[in-house]
Amino acid sequence: MLNFVYDNKTTLIFGKGTQHEAGALLKPFGKKVLLHYGGGSIRRSGLYDAVTASLKAAGVEYEELGGVQPNPTLPLVYEGIRLCREHGLGLVLAVGGGSVIDSAKAIALGVPHEGDVWDLYLSKQQPQADPLPVATVLTIPAAGSESSPNTVITNEETRRKLRYGSPKLRPVFSIINPELFFTLPHHQMANGVSDMMSHIFERYFTRTLHTDLSDGLCETTLRTIMRNARILNGNLHDYDAWAEIAFSGNLAHNNLLGVGREQDWGCHAMEHELSALYHVDHGAGLAVVTPAWMKYVSPKHQGMFAQFAVKVMGVEGSFREPDALIREGISRLERFYRELGLPTTMEELNIKSGDFPLMAEQAISVRGPIGGLEKLDARDVQAIYRLACEGPLPD
Amino acid sequence: MLNFVYDNKTTLIFGKGTQHEAGALLKPFGKKVLLHYGGGSIRRSGLYDAVTASLKAAGVEYEELGGVQPNPTLPLVYEGIRLCREHGLGLVLAVGGGSVIDSAKAIALGVPHEGDVWDLYLSKQQPQADPLPVATVLTIPAAGSESSPNTVITNEETRRKLRYGSPKLRPVFSIINPELFFTLPHHQMANGVSDMMSHIFERYFTRTLHTDLSDGLCETTLRTIMRNARILNGNLHDYDAWAEIAFSGNLAHNNLLGVGREQDWGCHAMEHELSALYHVDHGAGLAVVTPAWMKYVSPKHQGMFAQFAVKVMGVEGSFREPDALIREGISRLERFYRELGLPTTMEELNIKSGDFPLMAEQAISVRGPIGGLEKLDARDVQAIYRLACEGPLPD
Repeated sequence: MLNFVYDNKTTLIFGKGTQHEAGALLKPFGKKVLLHYGGGSIRRSGLYDAVTASLKAAGVEYEELGGVQPNPTLPLVYEGIRLCREHGLGLVLAVGGGSVIDSAKAIALGVPHEGDVWDLYLSKQQPQADPLPVATVLTIPAAGSESSPNTVITNEETRRKLRYGSPKLRPVFSIINPELFFTLPHHQMANGVSDMMSHIFERYFTRTLHTDLSDGLCETTLRTIMRNARILNGNLHDYDAWAEIAFSGNLAHNNLLGVGREQDWGCHAMEHELSALYHVDHGAGLAVVTPAWMKYVSPKHQGMFAQFAVKVMGVEGSFREPDALIREGISRLERFYRELGLPTTMEELNIKSGDFPLMAEQAISVRGPIGGLEKLDARDVQAIYRLACEGPLPD
Repeated sequence: MLNFVYDNKTTLIFGKGTQHEAGALLKPFGKKVLLHYGGGSIRRSGLYDAVTASLKAAGVEYEELGGVQPNPTLPLVYEGIRLCREHGLGLVLAVGGGSVIDSAKAIALGVPHEGDVWDLYLSKQQPQADPLPVATVLTIPAAGSESSPNTVITNEETRRKLRYGSPKLRPVFSIINPELFFTLPHHQMANGVSDMMSHIFERYFTRTLHTDLSDGLCETTLRTIMRNARILNGNLHDYDAWAEIAFSGNLAHNNLLGVGREQDWGCHAMEHELSALYHVDHGAGLAVVTPAWMKYVSPKHQGMFAQFAVKVMGVEGSFREPDALIREGISRLERFYRELGLPTTMEELNIKSGDFPLMAEQAISVRGPIGGLEKLDARDVQAIYRLACEGPLPD
């Protein structure tokens, strides 16, 4: 186990009806907040009315800023910063999924920052001034942003999508009511499940030895996600399955499962280029890239992937034939993705192999070779993209 | 899954050499702290010198208060409160195990409190004023107090040992260096392991359904503890095994494993009376009481105990004969305790059956019947105490 620091200051308010507690929970943070959200779905679902009624009942004043899009962009962030400064707002309440929360964090970061908040995304420097507190009411369990220290913002002018992280950006509280997820379309459930599983994979696959507890935490969380995703696959209104998925999705990315071990993050970097060039859903892109990555790197890490096959995917078979064990583990993951209606080939995403060289160069452009288990250069990344054209292993 | 609130604000600083970071970590909390510890062991081990050197290097001034005994008592707490007030100390740094940390929390609670701090332990009211922050350098991984919101203090005059809890008592940070545990005597390792396993059992055994994730988290943490305790049983200087035990012990009692489920706490209440009357070690008392409790309540909760046998104790066998499965699960737990040199009978603790009626009455005197899985009245408790005389199941 490696030395680590673990620090998670987000209070989780979890369960039925909890959205009505927003106002009371916000009261200790001051009288005026920015209510930040996306499109019309929270109005249609009644969540907007529930939250604003709760704010009014608690005497919490608010200004509103809706309109966050998937892949949140800078102009709305600037508008939010302006609103907070002009009205003296003391907290940003994000009602939405990962994009809304990421946008809220950018606003919170920008309000006390002298100069352009985007410069922090470029420089990765820690903020000089404490960001405003952020709180959330979660509408999609997937990105884990409701208790992560990270935000991803897209600058459309410079065509860059950058991540920024600071422990000070962990939300002060997050309200997670699984009932709010009943109305999500099936493909958002599937994409979210793929995303949260990848958050665990990126931590699970490691060269670090003596990681018994975190191995076990990763494995049981992955099994819980798959078991309950299969229930949702048949019934999107199952409260208990959503509760397991939402709790798991939070744990998947609050980094408890990644402490004391070298992490990977190669698949996220490779998928990033799919989303950047073709605007595919992050979860769908991960379902295509991940099995290909596993096929490419597993021959050099048979112990790790045999453990994955046996402990996560439930494969039985002879440990004297690890190739077969590993192949079956990866095949089961592919079958799981397909069961959920997720793509597993580049073709299904309409991605052309002619773009692979450019995408591979971009993937390693920020920090050089990617990945922790196995360092991948542009040639490796291209090879993995090509493997992702071949489609799943035969049953 | 039940609705829950989860809130854990303790930063963990985990790994080799981390005790030297104490001073730098304390700096943001002000210039003067109370250094609180137990007997001479931290002087003999060099930890005292390391921590005080780190404070001096960071320019953090301190007053000292040593002398905390197992089952910390009120007079030293009052002395700590006086020192903090007199010297304007802004934080209590506990260097020690559960007793030192519990004493530190009592001092932190008492400093801003008008009136007697013991009244809070009696009334269980939340504090009017914010307690001083507490930080810890852990020397025994067992009680979980390094990130729990609880403190237990004994009032020797009134012969009462009472627990008090407030989210505000979670330490601001805890330094956990597994190297510091190398010099613990074997029986403290064994007692600590028994204590942390019980912290999980009290959460694991539940009537609540649809608890996939927290079931799995409990099971994998229990397996990790037992696997690594067996390593320490042979070699108390194994860093990696201590790291797993220490990380597990923290997780066992920070309540992540207990959210969304009804908890039990019957064994803790029953053991409390053993420790109160006979001053036995808490972990040793739990090793005696727990299997007896399992034998008593498992016939009414076969599903839960079959799951325990299979998923925690690794029992194989026919699910059509759950009695045999459960019996083997409990027997394996008893064998595990004995392997670690822990007692499994009242006789080994020199506890006389003539005291059982009094102990049983005391156990239910605070809040009536105890336990969550199965409510236990004084007659049940006596029956369990008697079962704990019979000794382990035959292999």
